[in-house]
Amino acid sequence: MIRIGIAGYGNLGKGVELAVRQNPDMELVGVFTRRAPESVALMTPGVKVYSLSDAEKLKDQIDVMILCGGSATDLPKQTAELAAMFNVVDSFDTHAKIPEHFAAVDAAAKAAGKIAIISAGWDPGMFSLNRIYSEAILPVGSTYTFWGRGVSQGHSDAIRRVEGVKDARQYTVPVPEALESVRAGENPVLTTRQKHTRECYVVAEEGADLEKIEKTIKEMPNYFADYDTTVTFISQEELNEKHGGIPHGGFVIRSGETASGKKHVIEYSLKLNSNPEFTSSVLTACARAAYRMKAEGMKGCKTVFDIAPSYWSAKSPEELRKELL
Amino acid sequence: MIRIGIAGYGNLGKGVELAVRQNPDMELVGVFTRRAPESVALMTPGVKVYSLSDAEKLKDQIDVMILCGGSATDLPKQTAELAAMFNVVDSFDTHAKIPEHFAAVDAAAKAAGKIAIISAGWDPGMFSLNRIYSEAILPVGSTYTFWGRGVSQGHSDAIRRVEGVKDARQYTVPVPEALESVRAGENPVLTTRQKHTRECYVVAEEGADLEKIEKTIKEMPNYFADYDTTVTFISQEELNEKHGGIPHGGFVIRSGETASGKKHVIEYSLKLNSNPEFTSSVLTACARAAYRMKAEGMKGCKTVFDIAPSYWSAKSPEELRKELL
Repeated sequence: MIRIGIAGYGNLGKGVELAVRQNPDMELVGVFTRRAPESVALMTPGVKVYSLSDAEKLKDQIDVMILCGGSATDLPKQTAELAAMFNVVDSFDTHAKIPEHFAAVDAAAKAAGKIAIISAGWDPGMFSLNRIYSEAILPVGSTYTFWGRGVSQGHSDAIRRVEGVKDARQYTVPVPEALESVRAGENPVLTTRQKHTRECYVVAEEGADLEKIEKTIKEMPNYFADYDTTVTFISQEELNEKHGGIPHGGFVIRSGETASGKKHVIEYSLKLNSNPEFTSSVLTACARAAYRMKAEGMKGCKTVFDIAPSYWSAKSPEELRKELL
Repeated sequence: MIRIGIAGYGNLGKGVELAVRQNPDMELVGVFTRRAPESVALMTPGVKVYSLSDAEKLKDQIDVMILCGGSATDLPKQTAELAAMFNVVDSFDTHAKIPEHFAAVDAAAKAAGKIAIISAGWDPGMFSLNRIYSEAILPVGSTYTFWGRGVSQGHSDAIRRVEGVKDARQYTVPVPEALESVRAGENPVLTTRQKHTRECYVVAEEGADLEKIEKTIKEMPNYFADYDTTVTFISQEELNEKHGGIPHGGFVIRSGETASGKKHVIEYSLKLNSNPEFTSSVLTACARAAYRMKAEGMKGCKTVFDIAPSYWSAKSPEELRKELL
């Protein structure tokens, strides 16, 4: 049995708790939180909640600690700290800061003789895998990544900070014509605006200036100004009823040519009814990989690029060759 | 530079010759054939053709030999033989015999201290990778593989052996309703007939009994009897003009549930204008992996399951993390 710890008990941590149940070679040993442990109620009977500051005491009882904090402030600090005590897996997704995060975590994990897998999830993660494989196979071509239709938490939060907004949900949506052109192997050059649209469902406070809210959202730099954005005002009830989920997904498409001029299109897509639960499922499979790699004597920071696929699976090499090859 | 040899110069061998041109870290050193070398004309100036029986003499001039023979009779013998002299890559695709092939090649490669990658291509190969990753992420669910629309060489050959048939081309086609049901996460139980149809384009000899040909094809055991098959008689000109290519492709779809009951669908698809050229491109990327794994001191038989994705790419780990993660 692989003994799993969870650091951070939000949507992602709960998703890992659920995922561990589906993997018969794993057991959940403990959940670590910065909140008061007695205030956190788990779904799994018999599993204890600990203060994150007590993690070191359980060093020998946990094979892999899955880090479920956020990329903005939690992981840049936590992953390196915990990699000094545990094999760890995180979902660090600030693409521009990955090299820096990698260097810090690698130093900590190497010094401690541990394995640390960073940036696991679906993007970075499964989408990254599809980008690397398809580019290696078709070196002459273009890779396109589309996100959605799905809820962007960051954009929803940005709308909620607008004056007069009570609640909001933002969907990122790929432009169908762009997708079709890429799939047809046309290798289009696409601007930000041509790739995705943004749909905002907004609950306004009573008496708020709706026109001003809409204008503020649509002109918001970085978040909305570069996109065709629609703003729809709805009631809190409608938001709760129709927009309560956290679905997401997207597409990685590579279109390339072999040297004879023949065209080929490789497409990978995800349709996820729960973005955090799927991400958690990837983290959990990577925890198995971390455990196996550590058992084989490896150490340091790894990404999905460094992990042989067989490490992800509970099946033996013989079963894999017989059943899945 | 990775020095590449090609053993066998049919469609696959020619595809590897083309693929090497797109990989600036590789050079083609020689092509090995069972035919008279002087009868084989390459597309690449300056590269020599050798008799396959002389391969051993070039042992020190080739880093990886890419085997481009067939799975029925060539590879079961050649891969193990050549793995005693070279790092090798093959596309062995007789699924049921993979365990046996693996064992023979592993023994030869280990004894010689070489790396042998078997069963590379798209199925087995890229489809296998998608089966293993998606099952590891969503352990509760079902995986479906659909092939086509594309030309099946084996089925086309089977039709050509029917009395009165001059030429033929057979397309394997996924049933759209089955695909849609799988994509919708309905986890259907599908019979062979419900998954694929078979379209046959047949050129009959003059005066042949067309009804008898159609009946013979449709009732042919293993090849057609279990499928809804259509037979269309056309002229040789039409066959050459409209059915001269070797397109193929297909879909690997996993539909699964996380423990909360939320559904998720992972889909991978290929649309290939040339089946052999795409397969060759996979073999060529795997040759890089074989070279790198050997350089790191590994040996023995490997499949795509055993190869960390970074080995496939010409980019450095730093570039990969920065550009593709």
